Amino acid sequence: MKCDFILDTERFQRQGFPEAIYSLGKTEKQVIEIIANLIKKPNPIIATRVEKNLALKIKNKFKKSFYFDKAKIIVINPLKKNGKNYIAVITAGTSDIQTAEESAVTAESLGNNVERIYDVGVAGIHRLFKFNEKIKNASCVVVCAGMEGALASVVGGLISKVVIGVPTSTGYGTGKGGYSALLTMLNSCSPNVCVVNIDNGFGAGIIANIINKNR
Amino acid sequence: MKCDFILDTERFQRQGFPEAIYSLGKTEKQVIEIIANLIKKPNPIIATRVEKNLALKIKNKFKKSFYFDKAKIIVINPLKKNGKNYIAVITAGTSDIQTAEESAVTAESLGNNVERIYDVGVAGIHRLFKFNEKIKNASCVVVCAGMEGALASVVGGLISKVVIGVPTSTGYGTGKGGYSALLTMLNSCSPNVCVVNIDNGFGAGIIANIINKNR
Amino acid sequence: MKCDFILDTERFQRQGFPEAIYSLGKTEKQVIEIIANLIKKPNPIIATRVEKNLALKIKNKFKKSFYFDKAKIIVINPLKKNGKNYIAVITAGTSDIQTAEESAVTAESLGNNVERIYDVGVAGIHRLFKFNEKIKNASCVVVCAGMEGALASVVGGLISKVVIGVPTSTGYGTGKGGYSALLTMLNSCSPNVCVVNIDNGFGAGIIANIINKNR
Amino acid sequence: MKCDFILDTERFQRQGFPEAIYSLGKTEKQVIEIIANLIKKPNPIIATRVEKNLALKIKNKFKKSFYFDKAKIIVINPLKKNGKNYIAVITAGTSDIQTAEESAVTAESLGNNVERIYDVGVAGIHRLFKFNEKIKNASCVVVCAGMEGALASVVGGLISKVVIGVPTSTGYGTGKGGYSALLTMLNSCSPNVCVVNIDNGFGAGIIANIINKNR
Amino acid sequence: MKCDFILDTERFQRQGFPEAIYSLGKTEKQVIEIIANLIKKPNPIIATRVEKNLALKIKNKFKKSFYFDKAKIIVINPLKKNGKNYIAVITAGTSDIQTAEESAVTAESLGNNVERIYDVGVAGIHRLFKFNEKIKNASCVVVCAGMEGALASVVGGLISKVVIGVPTSTGYGTGKGGYSALLTMLNSCSPNVCVVNIDNGFGAGIIANIINKNR
Amino acid sequence: MKCDFILDTERFQRQGFPEAIYSLGKTEKQVIEIIANLIKKPNPIIATRVEKNLALKIKNKFKKSFYFDKAKIIVINPLKKNGKNYIAVITAGTSDIQTAEESAVTAESLGNNVERIYDVGVAGIHRLFKFNEKIKNASCVVVCAGMEGALASVVGGLISKVVIGVPTSTGYGTGKGGYSALLTMLNSCSPNVCVVNIDNGFGAGIIANIINKNR
Amino acid sequence: MKCDFILDTERFQRQGFPEAIYSLGKTEKQVIEIIANLIKKPNPIIATRVEKNLALKIKNKFKKSFYFDKAKIIVINPLKKNGKNYIAVITAGTSDIQTAEESAVTAESLGNNVERIYDVGVAGIHRLFKFNEKIKNASCVVVCAGMEGALASVVGGLISKVVIGVPTSTGYGTGKGGYSALLTMLNSCSPNVCVVNIDNGFGAGIIANIINKNR
Amino acid sequence: MKCDFILDTERFQRQGFPEAIYSLGKTEKQVIEIIANLIKKPNPIIATRVEKNLALKIKNKFKKSFYFDKAKIIVINPLKKNGKNYIAVITAGTSDIQTAEESAVTAESLGNNVERIYDVGVAGIHRLFKFNEKIKNASCVVVCAGMEGALASVVGGLISKVVIGVPTSTGYGTGKGGYSALLTMLNSCSPNVCVVNIDNGFGAGIIANIINKNR
Repeated sequence: MKCDFILDTERFQRQGFPEAIYSLGKTEKQVIEIIANLIKKPNPIIATRVEKNLALKIKNKFKKSFYFDKAKIIVINPLKKNGKNYIAVITAGTSDIQTAEESAVTAESLGNNVERIYDVGVAGIHRLFKFNEKIKNASCVVVCAGMEGALASVVGGLISKVVIGVPTSTGYGTGKGGYSALLTMLNSCSPNVCVVNIDNGFGAGIIANIINKNR
Repeated sequence: MKCDFILDTERFQRQGFPEAIYSLGKTEKQVIEIIANLIKKPNPIIATRVEKNLALKIKNKFKKSFYFDKAKIIVINPLKKNGKNYIAVITAGTSDIQTAEESAVTAESLGNNVERIYDVGVAGIHRLFKFNEKIKNASCVVVCAGMEGALASVVGGLISKVVIGVPTSTGYGTGKGGYSALLTMLNSCSPNVCVVNIDNGFGAGIIANIINKNR
Repeated sequence: MKCDFILDTERFQRQGFPEAIYSLGKTEKQVIEIIANLIKKPNPIIATRVEKNLALKIKNKFKKSFYFDKAKIIVINPLKKNGKNYIAVITAGTSDIQTAEESAVTAESLGNNVERIYDVGVAGIHRLFKFNEKIKNASCVVVCAGMEGALASVVGGLISKVVIGVPTSTGYGTGKGGYSALLTMLNSCSPNVCVVNIDNGFGAGIIANIINKNR
Repeated sequence: MKCDFILDTERFQRQGFPEAIYSLGKTEKQVIEIIANLIKKPNPIIATRVEKNLALKIKNKFKKSFYFDKAKIIVINPLKKNGKNYIAVITAGTSDIQTAEESAVTAESLGNNVERIYDVGVAGIHRLFKFNEKIKNASCVVVCAGMEGALASVVGGLISKVVIGVPTSTGYGTGKGGYSALLTMLNSCSPNVCVVNIDNGFGAGIIANIINKNR
Repeated sequence: MKCDFILDTERFQRQGFPEAIYSLGKTEKQVIEIIANLIKKPNPIIATRVEKNLALKIKNKFKKSFYFDKAKIIVINPLKKNGKNYIAVITAGTSDIQTAEESAVTAESLGNNVERIYDVGVAGIHRLFKFNEKIKNASCVVVCAGMEGALASVVGGLISKVVIGVPTSTGYGTGKGGYSALLTMLNSCSPNVCVVNIDNGFGAGIIANIINKNR
Repeated sequence: MKCDFILDTERFQRQGFPEAIYSLGKTEKQVIEIIANLIKKPNPIIATRVEKNLALKIKNKFKKSFYFDKAKIIVINPLKKNGKNYIAVITAGTSDIQTAEESAVTAESLGNNVERIYDVGVAGIHRLFKFNEKIKNASCVVVCAGMEGALASVVGGLISKVVIGVPTSTGYGTGKGGYSALLTMLNSCSPNVCVVNIDNGFGAGIIANIINKNR
Repeated sequence: MKCDFILDTERFQRQGFPEAIYSLGKTEKQVIEIIANLIKKPNPIIATRVEKNLALKIKNKFKKSFYFDKAKIIVINPLKKNGKNYIAVITAGTSDIQTAEESAVTAESLGNNVERIYDVGVAGIHRLFKFNEKIKNASCVVVCAGMEGALASVVGGLISKVVIGVPTSTGYGTGKGGYSALLTMLNSCSPNVCVVNIDNGFGAGIIANIINKNR
Repeated sequence: MKCDFILDTERFQRQGFPEAIYSLGKTEKQVIEIIANLIKKPNPIIATRVEKNLALKIKNKFKKSFYFDKAKIIVINPLKKNGKNYIAVITAGTSDIQTAEESAVTAESLGNNVERIYDVGVAGIHRLFKFNEKIKNASCVVVCAGMEGALASVVGGLISKVVIGVPTSTGYGTGKGGYSALLTMLNSCSPNVCVVNIDNGFGAGIIANIINKNR
């Protein structure tokens, strides 16, 4: 056994989206080795949960890489955007923006247009309604919300598209860790709401990418 | 020790609301004995979670008693309603109505006016907005909701009064038992939302009664 | 307040799918009243979790209704199927079939073609691979699995489409209630897997319907 | 999208209480930008969970701001107190004081009188009874308690007003995080007890403010 | 292997209390066989959770047996009471009486005096204080309480003896199953409170028996 | 799709143990159809969790089938026992016997010798030590225990073989459902203890069969 | 309100044990102020969870104070030991010693003799049996154990005295935080085992003190 | 009581594997003292969870010790490998390697051959199938996986040997702490899968050692 990983280098061809490098459980050395292997092909490369220090090292080594600091994502070889379809990415509060950016940057790197609509949570529901048209015309909608996570249901009830709910771990007391938002979204009375893991902005971006492209 | 209970007969005088007889954990004999003791005073008597069979026996024995079957409540010596203030009792769906009725009948028995607004959950939020004025003018609002329980936050964001959230145990999968709705309400981003135990329509009715009377 | 429900009669026009009548939390009388109101319009009507007794009463009263007993669904005014696109509905075991049928019948009633692939769980993974082509060519895939729910990840890794995971409540011990399968699917290392509530076949059918139609 | 937030600037007019700036999930820059926007109107501004460092920066920039260090709250443009009504804020132990101060300072900033009664938990219940009259005459009572949280029920049984229970996250072992106190308060046998999220002193202060003003 | 059980016939000699026959997980035949074996020695025999039907069969077969229906206990060969020491057994409500009786009858069968004080929960704390002297003079106190279980802490704060808290499974919503009461008692701020399993009246009776006898 | 199941008919050849028919989630018709298909080959067939009624129907239809009522297992075509190696199956109490029998009968049907040692739980640890030699000489040991499940650790500390812990769902209060026993076994300080799902006697029997045969 | 605490100065007289100063939730200033107030009376003072830094400050200020570093306890005015009765304090492993010392030092400070028996967990049960006589002759036994916590049951089965189980938070994975050990002890099949909160060595010491003195 | 531990020095003779020194809950001094005592005998010594700093001190003091940094294990007196049997140790991802190395190094130190197969998780299941022969021919297989942990079931379905599942705590959101992977493995539909505690690589290594040696 010579190395710690077996790259699934066919994934982009097989699935149309790349294997993300989830940085948290890996050493800096492992992340850089994996990029060095992947970069031999011209496919898009996405590394998530990249803290600033690591990002600097990657950018030093791989000049083509770009760091999105709000999203904590490194992108190499992004796809070009085309068409008019777009994905709407919505947050309930300002604390949900990192996760939303993880979704948005993932989708943009794979060639999708993204419209961001941030800080329109249900405590002041009129803020949401100002964006009614933009939301209705999206191919699909990603809703990032912590606390009680009610925004996904409300958006779900307004539109005919799929809503991808991303519970975020912002919150305190019983909201800590995002379980409250997760349960809210799983129990949505709007049946067009599906859910991904807490803080999984990347997954939501991938799913939105598939739906938007097939439209 | 001769009997199974020590009545807190001063409670109505001390607190302005009676000790409810929660029927579920008690034998029929215990419930009837407690009523027989309480009825010696002219105060209102409320027994909750009373199934039909027990209700019939109580009505046979205590002619003044009245059974509200949707609420599963027996009332004796209700107070007269007066004034124009009212409490709004709202549900997200039809499955939440029993709990809502427990709140509404409790409040009415203690002399409050109640406006019922049922089945206005967030999957079709426009249904709620039709009742905007009625909700805004209430002294306080009881919101009964199961599933994701998002309605309490939305209502909370619209008004300047206290919202008493009652999570209901309707739901399935992760919504079973009402924990999802409970967490949603506890994590409401509308700070005027407070919460009582799952299915505790009686408690919400008592709290609404106190707020409405002090107005 | 004259009745227990406020129909969201515009939902089909607004969202392209009807409000389902979830029968479990409702009395037989409520279910029948709701159908009687909805049937005035020519839109599809779907009632879920309908036990046999109730189904007979509904069929007696509404001659156009059809009962799918494996799915426990009543359908009235189904849409016609057209096109060649199809949704694949897969189960890990025979115990997951009721939920899978809830998805399949929901999607078919809204005019989608459905391919069923049942009992191909990971304990004998070769069974799954026989259906490789059929799965890859679907617009999207619904995977119903209880126990450890690993099938959703495996299918997710094989294809470029969205996988909608439906954890089922079959299982015993720590698998009781479906939480194990839910967690498995939420933590899928295949990023194209999204999840709905435990046993929520209806929701998965609605989401698959949206994706399949937009293709 | 130019900025990270959409202020709900009408909230004070619409609801009579301002949108709080919950500092924990936000960057210092975001907090200061939000204040800079809100301060254009003469309404009260409340920022909670403000650590000392951030407080200093805010005070440097906004000379009218005042920092309550026990409460970790910044207040700008507080309302004047008037009338004789008051809110009682009670704690079980000394560890619950920060949460209690969050409630008390919130309520005072909105023009309410507050009586603080601290460290009167049930292990020495005689300490509570010394304050009997002061508690009974309050418009409503906020009870902050961690550990077993029993104080809310005991106070609830003594008075005719609403008790707003605030479970605190102080405690260890099974008491860690405040879940034990939360459950105790939700299951209170005193029906006049309602509950807010763990450590949510701000919410309790808002609810107490509404009840006290409407009296 | 000829039989399903290996009696620990030396337990009474070794520990001073007998092995209880917990009837719930056993067939009627197993319970009767175990009694038939134990009855060969003159030691006390206690079978708990005995429903009426089984009790009748046991009484038919073993004439010396006595059934306590409130406690659901069969006793054979009880020890004689002596001395003036006594154990106090207290309940918060009438629904906790079965568990309390399990404690009381267990202790009495082993020769202890027991004082019962029922229905003195904290919603009307004055009821408890009437029994102050009786409680203070007990060797130790068993407190049975469901719901929020606060009574154990309050009693613990009043006396210098050990309080054995028995959480009961009475309650609904978040109180269902007794976890709320259990957590309350484990987190008691009165350090003289120890706890046994939910509904474990037998265990509390055994512990009280040891403490009372050693006094 | 013509039928509800796809038999993994090669499993016995591939793995050396058959696919069990877990009866609980299946209709009687499905169970019988599956047996009818499997019986075409001469391999052993095991159906678990078979209640009496179903067992009678199976025995009527398949004359070679044998029903073990304590184990709730139907066996067809058992393998012959040979060799002197044996598996020890131990229970803590009489309530754990059904699960133990599921293990024992599974292993015996696959040709293993089994020694049963029942009712030797840690409350009277001397009962266990009488069987010291028999336990030490087994190829491996299955320990079935509910309640606190401590027996697995104690046995693990005595021997040099693998202990397969099977938590059972017997117990009440916090022991209900078997989670307490499961956690005990997972946290065993004896490192030779591995664990299967709660009540999963079949799985333990299969694992013991593999270890015993390879010896 | 001038200060943050109301001392329960009568507690030692009322209950025979002092109010402990639990240092974790308090500022250093608060701890020192409380000691300064308590030291005016000659009663024993116990402060728990005192880290080294705080201990040094306390010892500087109050010359009579003594710091037990393994127990993290400060004691002032300990009572004299007398008599021959003793309490046994037992641990399963070396990681449980801090909690055990909290129990032991608490009991010794109140005048009890203590026998320590450490590192005798069930993975090598023969180590325990060497101390059989010492354990049997104790007035009562405190058992501190993390991981699977099985030791409390085994000790409980050997003796006729009360066992006070203290689950400790040592452990990893499912044993993290001590819940596994807690559940084990609550579900003990030895009925003479009672339990206190996770890591609550102080509480166990107080209860042991009461039992030992009354002997 | 002179020291903090009682060595179970007979364990290697009694059980064939040594007592591991789990370093996390111990002081550096305690770890070194324990090694100093154990090293008097020639048996293998294994210390787990040893961070670099401690490892350096141990290596300074005990020249025969060897530190495996990926496994965080110190080994002294390893056994010689012999025979051709081997254990396969498999991981789903690169983040699971530390736990896998804990298993592998433990087994190797006790004289077993180990084959490592890392990063073959189910999102790209074809990677696994390349190692089919190597896995099938192992004596038993250790599978380390976090996230959804599905790999254990898939491997279990392919082979006739025992699979020892080790859930790892890598993951985020609902996967945090390893509970999701644990539940997946416990609910495996492959009956030859058994499970050890989260991150318990050592235990898996011991069990694999027993099975491999007895083959």
